[in-house]
Amino acid sequence: MSIETGRGEMGAGLTAVNSAAGSEECRVVLLPSGRKGQVARGITLLEAARALGVEIESICGGRQTCGKCQVVLEPGDFPKHGLVSREANLSPMGEGESSYLEKNQISGRRLACAAEVIGDVLISVPEESQARKQIIAKEASQRVMEVEPAVRQVYVEAIPATMPDHRGDWQRLQAALQEQWKLQDLSIDLPALRALQPALKQGHHKVTISLWQDRQVLRVQPGYAEGAYGLAVDVGSTTVVVHLCDLRTGQVLATESSMNPQVRYGEDLMSRVSYGMMEPQGVTRMHRAIIRCLNELAEKACQSVGLAPDSVLDAVLVGNTVMHHLLLGIDPQELGGAPFALATSSATDLKARDLGLEFHPSAQVHVLPCIAGHVGADHVGVLLAEEPHRQDEIALVIDVGTNAEMSLGNRERLLCASSPTGPAFEGAQITHGQRAAPGAVERVRIDPQTLEPRYRVIGYDPWVEPEASSDLPPAGRATGICGSGIIEAVAEMFLAGIIGPEGRFREAAAERSPRVRFRGRTGEFILVPGNATISGAPLVVTQSDVRAIQLAKAALYAGVKLLMAHRGVEHVDRIALAGAFGSYIDPQHAMILGMIPDCDLARVQGVGNAAGDGARIALLSRSQRLEAQRLARWAEHVQTATEPRFQDEFVAAIAIPHASDAFPHLAGILPATTAEPQRPRGHRRANRPVEEGTQ
Amino acid sequence: MSIETGRGEMGAGLTAVNSAAGSEECRVVLLPSGRKGQVARGITLLEAARALGVEIESICGGRQTCGKCQVVLEPGDFPKHGLVSREANLSPMGEGESSYLEKNQISGRRLACAAEVIGDVLISVPEESQARKQIIAKEASQRVMEVEPAVRQVYVEAIPATMPDHRGDWQRLQAALQEQWKLQDLSIDLPALRALQPALKQGHHKVTISLWQDRQVLRVQPGYAEGAYGLAVDVGSTTVVVHLCDLRTGQVLATESSMNPQVRYGEDLMSRVSYGMMEPQGVTRMHRAIIRCLNELAEKACQSVGLAPDSVLDAVLVGNTVMHHLLLGIDPQELGGAPFALATSSATDLKARDLGLEFHPSAQVHVLPCIAGHVGADHVGVLLAEEPHRQDEIALVIDVGTNAEMSLGNRERLLCASSPTGPAFEGAQITHGQRAAPGAVERVRIDPQTLEPRYRVIGYDPWVEPEASSDLPPAGRATGICGSGIIEAVAEMFLAGIIGPEGRFREAAAERSPRVRFRGRTGEFILVPGNATISGAPLVVTQSDVRAIQLAKAALYAGVKLLMAHRGVEHVDRIALAGAFGSYIDPQHAMILGMIPDCDLARVQGVGNAAGDGARIALLSRSQRLEAQRLARWAEHVQTATEPRFQDEFVAAIAIPHASDAFPHLAGILPATTAEPQRPRGHRRANRPVEEGTQ
Repeated sequence: MSIETGRGEMGAGLTAVNSAAGSEECRVVLLPSGRKGQVARGITLLEAARALGVEIESICGGRQTCGKCQVVLEPGDFPKHGLVSREANLSPMGEGESSYLEKNQISGRRLACAAEVIGDVLISVPEESQARKQIIAKEASQRVMEVEPAVRQVYVEAIPATMPDHRGDWQRLQAALQEQWKLQDLSIDLPALRALQPALKQGHHKVTISLWQDRQVLRVQPGYAEGAYGLAVDVGSTTVVVHLCDLRTGQVLATESSMNPQVRYGEDLMSRVSYGMMEPQGVTRMHRAIIRCLNELAEKACQSVGLAPDSVLDAVLVGNTVMHHLLLGIDPQELGGAPFALATSSATDLKARDLGLEFHPSAQVHVLPCIAGHVGADHVGVLLAEEPHRQDEIALVIDVGTNAEMSLGNRERLLCASSPTGPAFEGAQITHGQRAAPGAVERVRIDPQTLEPRYRVIGYDPWVEPEASSDLPPAGRATGICGSGIIEAVAEMFLAGIIGPEGRFREAAAERSPRVRFRGRTGEFILVPGNATISGAPLVVTQSDVRAIQLAKAALYAGVKLLMAHRGVEHVDRIALAGAFGSYIDPQHAMILGMIPDCDLARVQGVGNAAGDGARIALLSRSQRLEAQRLARWAEHVQTATEPRFQDEFVAAIAIPHASDAFPHLAGILPATTAEPQRPRGHRRANRPVEEGTQ
Repeated sequence: MSIETGRGEMGAGLTAVNSAAGSEECRVVLLPSGRKGQVARGITLLEAARALGVEIESICGGRQTCGKCQVVLEPGDFPKHGLVSREANLSPMGEGESSYLEKNQISGRRLACAAEVIGDVLISVPEESQARKQIIAKEASQRVMEVEPAVRQVYVEAIPATMPDHRGDWQRLQAALQEQWKLQDLSIDLPALRALQPALKQGHHKVTISLWQDRQVLRVQPGYAEGAYGLAVDVGSTTVVVHLCDLRTGQVLATESSMNPQVRYGEDLMSRVSYGMMEPQGVTRMHRAIIRCLNELAEKACQSVGLAPDSVLDAVLVGNTVMHHLLLGIDPQELGGAPFALATSSATDLKARDLGLEFHPSAQVHVLPCIAGHVGADHVGVLLAEEPHRQDEIALVIDVGTNAEMSLGNRERLLCASSPTGPAFEGAQITHGQRAAPGAVERVRIDPQTLEPRYRVIGYDPWVEPEASSDLPPAGRATGICGSGIIEAVAEMFLAGIIGPEGRFREAAAERSPRVRFRGRTGEFILVPGNATISGAPLVVTQSDVRAIQLAKAALYAGVKLLMAHRGVEHVDRIALAGAFGSYIDPQHAMILGMIPDCDLARVQGVGNAAGDGARIALLSRSQRLEAQRLARWAEHVQTATEPRFQDEFVAAIAIPHASDAFPHLAGILPATTAEPQRPRGHRRANRPVEEGTQ
């Protein structure tokens, strides 16, 4: 072989220092995977790694230009692996390799595509050189993601056109891709086809191809080019979040968010469904509004890191079922009534341009699948991120919003449902409720002795103490109470004995503090006095606010109980609360209120924007997209609306619980006074009309 | 079986009259195919036909609503087929069948999907009920086409949504399509997905689906719907022709044509290529111009038969390579110089919307493949229509234009090439040349004695006789000479001895008639005197016009000779002249001029718009699309530009031939006087400069 001869001429001393150099096979160990084996002498480290099942990254295909395949030779005696690893056991550097490393000021590393194995070696593959990198998602729960994106780049040297070869340039490029990258049956999208000949000309027949799913060419760039970007998009009813990711490294480069512009057509989902039904152009208008919003966010995110929006080649979109339909321009009216039929439940692959998204003209969009009429792609995203289906323990995953989407189970069986919690948890339909925005009361503590509250206002760091009310700066003055604020307020009012477990204001409390007052038989609690608000009017929590929260939490809890009954479990091992709301809610107060079932409080976690994390996971991994599709089909859906049992659980869950058998983890936290005496009453109330408490 | 029982109850007399009724198998003969065999008693005629390999049309899938499967029972004794066919050997009509036939006033027919075989029958399947109909293309050469379109309709009864079934409506529809039509792995295009739920609602879960290649749903219509249309489009450099076809019957419903609006950017192909190179927006402008033109023609064609343009679900486009590229919005500049590389040579499937074509929002477009840099999709269309690759005889197929695209061969081997004829054949670069349009002289005869010409003018029916010049109506007054006119004029001038075989005007002719005159040594012929033209100035054929035609015909002939040499044949069995020009040209004059090789004149045919016919064939047949793709790869391309032999043949072909060995079929037609003496001279001239004759 010419390589053997060449080697012999270049370094006559090699054989002396390298015991294995004379043999046909060399021993190679790769770290951190620990893969090892014998390989033929003279093959490159890149080939050796591939043969041993380790994928090392490469864009240029072994041309020593991309530098993605850097590895480190670990010199030394490794008896455990039965080899002595020496620098001389790799072929000396050629000109291409040494000039690349010099130019980029890299030392102590080799290019795996250039270095040939001529003796035993132990090689470290740095994380950035691993083709299927694992990255840590910074958001929330330190999730580990595989980077194996649907869009990847390959560098290829095409066959120049000649007179006798009457194939088209695309056909010649296909032949080169087949030969150099083993890629077959590729198609090319029209904009890429239009760019092909100019790129071949400019790159002197060397081009970099961006490929989707190893099936379609999306982009052709002249010469060697690097950089493929994607967007992970979570379209919430209220907030839209866009993460711009580097598809090769998996890194989030920029995050942008804005309010969902559809809010102007309807605050909650059902009012948007109605808008679509009432207004002839309603669906189109809402569709265009969200698309325009995504275009703006994409442009902003790209701009912030100096990219043009046409750098975006791929996007993964999640949203609840109504958002999912409006994103695709599908009228969601069937979701507004039984049997709540989705237009499609599968994942959808389409061209960004077909949605009016102004990314790269050939960019792809992948919309995650939905599970059922009210369990959408956002929940599938949450499941991808939280992975209850990969664990033994029984997890409860809840995404709280207008509807609470929830899943319960483990690797054996996963059930999901949605519960009609209504918008109270988001601060809507609450007397002084508001969105979580600066000025909103978000945390509340009430002194059980004095009944004086302390609270925090979004946008103002310190806790506001009762006596501090009068000399607050404007940022500390409250404008309303947001979802987490109202939940904590109701929970604290219960703990302080202001309301009873049935939710009624206690007249005894009014005797203890002027903060509690009655208008007729209806009580209210002054949470923030007028001198501490922007408007000058006090912020109060009324009997009907308490009732709204009770109904919402009862719906949530009833849904959970229904799933537990279907799954045949008495308790859950952990609870993940997803979504912005889930991040702000205090697990203890949620449990005091009886929103969630009993669980070790340390295992109740707000997991942040898990739907968005799920979108990122799917953006960066082809196999996770398949997993999502499988998951959406595999998960069993329990229909809350038609189950008589749900109604029973709902009525039973209206009362605020106590340190009973149902909540052993609350023992010692709930007020002793309210615990025992009320218990039988709460149970008796189960079948009474819900409204009674407000009378 | 319930059917057997039911039968027994309904018609007790059946068994008595029907010898086969008691047995398990019945004999079925189907005409006109002649297929026959035994089938199980009780199956429908539709099933029986399918089992015997005869496809009967059905849209409704056996629901007795579409009436596409009508058949005729032929009663009588058929000893040849060994059966007695009786009306009673089919099951009696049920309510659905009889009500359909009554409503549509049909008698003597049965619906194959309803009529069950209960005895021996001989059945005629009318042509319109055959699923793979063969239709006769009206244009040109009575071509037989198979109707097996890429887009077809199926009627399906979907599974209504229920609460426990949490699949999407599309997933339920897929299940129904799988069950009712054995269709698998279907995708649905976004606009169809958007239309799905409203159609299901309106049609009470019964919908008609339009499917592309049994792969993708393009359209969903409520209930039972009929009507899928397609366009066959021939984009010529000068003229664009659109045929609107019924995809089920194959019928041409309307044909529209217009001038290619790109003409304003450049008369011939090369000037359009240059325009694209010089003008930054040139390619986009030319692309948009042709797309706008196609939208207008499609709309006109649809309007003329009362359809909306969104009825068009499929289109097949052909054009020469420059047209092909501009259609797709690809810069054709590489086609302007060696090595004449196509951007793509394969057939291209894409969405009409991606080209800006305003058909149905999900409509597909199929562009036929190209063979080489100057042998385009139009030539592939011509080959599909002329089918030299399916015949034993050696055919020469020529499409004359700025470049002549030509193929030569048979089923064993087919060679193709393009010859740079230049635009003289289209009337360009001719002193009084013009496009074939009203006012153009298109036919010429010259009296060899008097040298007086007779001619025909486009738009004016009678031949214009020499003496009639002065009192012609305006429509008879000539404006110029078109391609066929100049060819006939030169050929007739040669036959009359006005010019010699080397192409020079003869001084002797000037002595015989004032129509021939000399300016210095350069002669010209007054074809139309001033009093018979619109402008008042005479139309003349000059020495340089003769020279231009000689160069053009030499290029064409040299190309043909090159192909004959490569194919190893001395003569061709037939010649097909495609294109508008090919239809008007007189084979005898073409041969006199030496444009085409010797051939039995009866076997030289103008075959009309064969490229457009090819587009129609591909529009109506999936397998013909595959055939075209195969053909484009299989045909061998001979590069005229680089073959030294082509230059030799070209120079040798400049002289106008004579009754020599090369043209035995012209013996007796060519003037005896010019025949022998000139021969050596013509051959000697082969290596002299081309321009000499004009000096």
